[in-house]
Amino acid sequence: MLGSTHGTLTTDFRARVVACGEEPHAAVHSMTVDAATASVLDVSGRPLHAAVPDLDRFFRPGSVAVVGASDTEGRPNTGITRQLIDWAERVGARLYPVHPTRESVFGRACSPSVADLPEQVDLAVLLVGDPLPVIEELAQAKVRFAVAFASGFAETGEEGAAAQARLAEAVERSGLRLLGPNTNLNAFEKFRDDLDGPAIALITQSGHQGRPVYTLQELGVRLSHWAPTGNEADLETADFISYFSQCPEVGAIACYVEGLKDGRSFLLAADRAARAGVPVVAVKVGRTETGARMAASHTGKLTGADQVVDAAMRQFGVIRVDGLDELQDTAALLARARKPQAEGVVVYSISGGTGAHFSDLATGAGLSLPTLSEAKQRELHEWIPDYLNVANPVDNGGHPVGDWRGRKIIDAILADPDVGVLICPITGPFPPMSDKLAQDLVDAAETTDKLVCVVWGSPVGTEEAYRTTLLGSSRVATFRTFGNCITAVKAYLDHHRFAASYRSPFDEAPRTPSPSFRKAQALMRPGHQLSEHAAKQLLRAYGIRVPREQLVTSAAASVRAAALVGYPVVMKASGARLAHKTELGLVKVGLTSASQVRDAYRELTDIARYEGVELDGILVCQMVERGVEMVVGVTQDALFGPTVTVGLGGVLVEVLHDAAVRVPPFGEDQARSMLGELRGRALLEGVRGGPPVDVDALVEVVLRVQRMALELGDDLTELDINPLMVLGRGQGAVALDALAVCR
Amino acid sequence: MLGSTHGTLTTDFRARVVACGEEPHAAVHSMTVDAATASVLDVSGRPLHAAVPDLDRFFRPGSVAVVGASDTEGRPNTGITRQLIDWAERVGARLYPVHPTRESVFGRACSPSVADLPEQVDLAVLLVGDPLPVIEELAQAKVRFAVAFASGFAETGEEGAAAQARLAEAVERSGLRLLGPNTNLNAFEKFRDDLDGPAIALITQSGHQGRPVYTLQELGVRLSHWAPTGNEADLETADFISYFSQCPEVGAIACYVEGLKDGRSFLLAADRAARAGVPVVAVKVGRTETGARMAASHTGKLTGADQVVDAAMRQFGVIRVDGLDELQDTAALLARARKPQAEGVVVYSISGGTGAHFSDLATGAGLSLPTLSEAKQRELHEWIPDYLNVANPVDNGGHPVGDWRGRKIIDAILADPDVGVLICPITGPFPPMSDKLAQDLVDAAETTDKLVCVVWGSPVGTEEAYRTTLLGSSRVATFRTFGNCITAVKAYLDHHRFAASYRSPFDEAPRTPSPSFRKAQALMRPGHQLSEHAAKQLLRAYGIRVPREQLVTSAAASVRAAALVGYPVVMKASGARLAHKTELGLVKVGLTSASQVRDAYRELTDIARYEGVELDGILVCQMVERGVEMVVGVTQDALFGPTVTVGLGGVLVEVLHDAAVRVPPFGEDQARSMLGELRGRALLEGVRGGPPVDVDALVEVVLRVQRMALELGDDLTELDINPLMVLGRGQGAVALDALAVCR
Repeated sequence: MLGSTHGTLTTDFRARVVACGEEPHAAVHSMTVDAATASVLDVSGRPLHAAVPDLDRFFRPGSVAVVGASDTEGRPNTGITRQLIDWAERVGARLYPVHPTRESVFGRACSPSVADLPEQVDLAVLLVGDPLPVIEELAQAKVRFAVAFASGFAETGEEGAAAQARLAEAVERSGLRLLGPNTNLNAFEKFRDDLDGPAIALITQSGHQGRPVYTLQELGVRLSHWAPTGNEADLETADFISYFSQCPEVGAIACYVEGLKDGRSFLLAADRAARAGVPVVAVKVGRTETGARMAASHTGKLTGADQVVDAAMRQFGVIRVDGLDELQDTAALLARARKPQAEGVVVYSISGGTGAHFSDLATGAGLSLPTLSEAKQRELHEWIPDYLNVANPVDNGGHPVGDWRGRKIIDAILADPDVGVLICPITGPFPPMSDKLAQDLVDAAETTDKLVCVVWGSPVGTEEAYRTTLLGSSRVATFRTFGNCITAVKAYLDHHRFAASYRSPFDEAPRTPSPSFRKAQALMRPGHQLSEHAAKQLLRAYGIRVPREQLVTSAAASVRAAALVGYPVVMKASGARLAHKTELGLVKVGLTSASQVRDAYRELTDIARYEGVELDGILVCQMVERGVEMVVGVTQDALFGPTVTVGLGGVLVEVLHDAAVRVPPFGEDQARSMLGELRGRALLEGVRGGPPVDVDALVEVVLRVQRMALELGDDLTELDINPLMVLGRGQGAVALDALAVCR
Repeated sequence: MLGSTHGTLTTDFRARVVACGEEPHAAVHSMTVDAATASVLDVSGRPLHAAVPDLDRFFRPGSVAVVGASDTEGRPNTGITRQLIDWAERVGARLYPVHPTRESVFGRACSPSVADLPEQVDLAVLLVGDPLPVIEELAQAKVRFAVAFASGFAETGEEGAAAQARLAEAVERSGLRLLGPNTNLNAFEKFRDDLDGPAIALITQSGHQGRPVYTLQELGVRLSHWAPTGNEADLETADFISYFSQCPEVGAIACYVEGLKDGRSFLLAADRAARAGVPVVAVKVGRTETGARMAASHTGKLTGADQVVDAAMRQFGVIRVDGLDELQDTAALLARARKPQAEGVVVYSISGGTGAHFSDLATGAGLSLPTLSEAKQRELHEWIPDYLNVANPVDNGGHPVGDWRGRKIIDAILADPDVGVLICPITGPFPPMSDKLAQDLVDAAETTDKLVCVVWGSPVGTEEAYRTTLLGSSRVATFRTFGNCITAVKAYLDHHRFAASYRSPFDEAPRTPSPSFRKAQALMRPGHQLSEHAAKQLLRAYGIRVPREQLVTSAAASVRAAALVGYPVVMKASGARLAHKTELGLVKVGLTSASQVRDAYRELTDIARYEGVELDGILVCQMVERGVEMVVGVTQDALFGPTVTVGLGGVLVEVLHDAAVRVPPFGEDQARSMLGELRGRALLEGVRGGPPVDVDALVEVVLRVQRMALELGDDLTELDINPLMVLGRGQGAVALDALAVCR
């Protein structure tokens, strides 16, 4: 429905391949776009494709200059220089110290400036207090990448932010790409190269916060990259997501994000990861950020900034978690586990209590624990006493794990075609049982593509079965708590379901204005709030149904209008700055005769005069039958631009703020899923035997409002249809009142 | 308000002291009641005080008989016998093997039966397949306690449940107290005796599930008891809660519960712990249990069984957690931490990112992070660079922890009178900083009564600073995840707030029926649903306001009734089995004249005839002005008996099930807190500038409904006031419709 010119581009887009570090292991990993394609814009002027920087030479430079290198004991730069020399030796890069006065650093000849270096280096590490003066020099020496360690920029306040802006401008002019400022050595840490399989790529806006994921290597989890983005004057989180989603060794991207630099860049990067099927797991600080928002309408107040971030992440499949422990466990699982062969989860335990407890929490979190078939249960009872429950959870009572039966049971569960995941919570280490159980699980996991998870519940964690047997296996996913196992397995199944059906909304986003746009432009009044009547005309321009109505300025005209509109009618005061008309008594409903209409006209104008409100006239409107009242609106988000909100009307939206939000572009599937998020969604299906309402019409209104938001862009500061009366199935939806604010 | 005869009893109750194991360290720990006091009942016939078994000799027996002892290699009883012999030697108990045919077991002389033992033993451990025949023999030998290991009882189905019932009867007749059946050796495990300070006492209905808390001893947390209650044929979780709450060495009680044997026993035990100020932390399986409930009304459907368990636990201060990891961390903190000196939490970190992230999650969970005073911030800036934020979270930027400033900063924060808790999340181990930081925190914690918490975020957990420095301190509470730290600290502050203001509702529960009861009894019709009119008379008997109304059976009578009630009137069909009158068209509102009343009478009786509903007449009722519609009701819970529910009316209760429940007895504070739990509670404060409603009147109705529930007990299967119209402040609340079902 939204645009049809994208066919050629998509073909072109899919045809292009850029290699990245290693050989691509799958076609989806290798897609990228060239600069020309990346410049395509949607109708709001926003890009439709991520510009993916080629960071191969950043992460694996052949040569590096260290500007500000030092070997004077006690200076901070000395320690950093030493670490960089170690790193360069490890990865086989040529390293050149640069210092205006030093002859040599740690025995290496020192150049006075980058211009004097013996070769054109890939990367310059800037250890100088102010990197700004060096940028131009680097550009002239054709250095491609720089890392700036200096702090004292945007993190310190306004003055620092201004310095950072100057630095960003210089970098943009220069053409080089900069990491930092206010970053560190994390990109050049030691990565274990003895670990196999897909790796985690890590992106953090704080070095300390990335340390736990980095430390996972000590538990056998492979890490391929760490991008400590610091203040993001140039390279940002989104750039690294785009780049990593093309790297064949990357199985999952883990992010720690405090603030996003640009909403659209982030979405385009997430889109790129989604197309490539690479999961992105993120901690995003700001759950409790309230954020001051200018909003005169209900929908405007409904969506806190964090709710928008949350929605945007879900739209593009980014898995948001709260704790760094969840980030570790979820990213490790998603990086390493193969595609699920079924959605069914079986809980297997040596204790009925453990099975019941785990199943209770897993079911509560939305995992599906299918009841095993009669045949499968009979099979399990060959090895498990009859009085124990093996329907799922499977309780073996303990003893069978001690002998040959233990492995048989595990194999039998994994052979079930409905089972995609086997989870074995071992809450207490009891070596005669748990050591053998752990070994059986590890052995069985080697023979299957299905996911085998273990929860090792001992708080100690130095036990042999845990340290050696379980952590020694890259095929068993080992957790320490029920909660983290459930979070990760849920994310794993959700991710693969999402990825399998993902269609990028950017491919279908409109690029040229619709015919509605010209009509709408004529109605916009920059800097003003439109009257109800004008706002409704805006809606009509986009094909959203409004009641038959006429704006009149005399009692006689109101009677003529009522005859045209058809009795019974509603009469309302109309003015540019009117809100809460009902409370002021400025609405009269159910008028059935000319005399009632005439009286109502006088009364409304009297009240308006008394209240001192300026009117552009009185609206005489068609009475619309009762349905379910909704609100649909547009609000500007500081990070993402226009967002679309839908909520249940009346007390639900006023008291409970029961609303869902999406960031454009999104398709019909997302519009429908918004309704599924509403706590009061049962109202749409009919309450107390009432008939269901026209959900299709409601979805259509949401999509048309999105089109308005995209085409009018920032010029439409706010739109609020309240109420949208959604009628019975097949009867449509009517905007009974509307508010629009133009920039 | 509810009863006034408890004064004497409370005095008597507080005067009695029974010592328990060790010397009591505080007066609150030593309260108990004798058998006479414990027999006092409330008006519903339920006990008002826990019967606390004296279990000193169970946990510390002087002599033990092992019935079914064995030393034949390969038999399960042999391993158990050996463990019991080891345990007896460790604790200095005399152990006697009992077996009908063996001469000796492990070199100890064996008696053929308990009757032949050389002394009257405190405890008999029954390793026999069927413990039933042994019970009488034990009783005759005056054995006080028995433990039955045998399985095959209620856990296996109906037949086993019948066997268990027979065992329970025999135990009750015998006068001894039994642990089990289907239990194990956990009560006789090895407990570390080298650990100081308050301990955790553990109660589990599954041995495997208790293992992680037991294993905490390896991390330096003291455990004093473990009660593996098994099938609870006799001794139950509640008995151990009551007993442990009197033991002076117990700082917190940790429970793993799959099912409660009796609701009231559990509440009385929790009440006892609350009076003693001993926190109870529990995992209760059953979050997703739906539970089949017979309920014809809205309120009946609102409260799933688990919601009732949840409410009951909160009423009596039991801290419910989901995971065993949370059980460990929360119980350990509550056992060991001293009373908070202030509620303020300060987050202190070597990284701004870590501080921001932790604070975001902590604030979201409801912890209070006060902004430090200007003076305190100036003080901290003596050691911390000016550009870093020290308002709370306190970010030291890293470097100050490396020298003498590190300790100064910690001491300065702890000296702030608004600060009760200092939390230092150390997400990555970086020995030059984190080792010194850990040591400074441990040292500082030794000098203060305030709570110092550390989150050690490394997933590895074998680091020296963690294992030795942090876990070596009993004054620092160390966690592994942000989430568990926040959960535990929240529980800690909540518990102490709760304990400080706790007043037992059992002290004020009514014991004798009110005058209302006699009126109500006359209205009850056993086995029937009352008509609207009769149900309203029941409400009136308890002083709940209903509209002026008359029940009429002719058109002429309806006109006379309308004149008496006063115009305008509402007319409704009234019958014993009528629900959803509005949908059937059986309600007419706003009738203003005799002719309208006459017409309405005919119409209502016509519809009733057409719909085939039996009427006892037509109600002519006073029109009540508009307010906020609520629902208030009584539902029978299988575990707890009658419960009281309050919810917001209309769409909120129908679609969102927005309701709160409480288990009687509860006081006015709980009735008010029910309203605070409603998501739509803002409606009570007035919406869109509307006036607030009469919340006091609403609370009064809830308390009067509780009184009904208590006095009518199980005879009132269900009560549903829907709607209760709550009018403006000072104007009361009126029950517009009601449904009551008698048993």
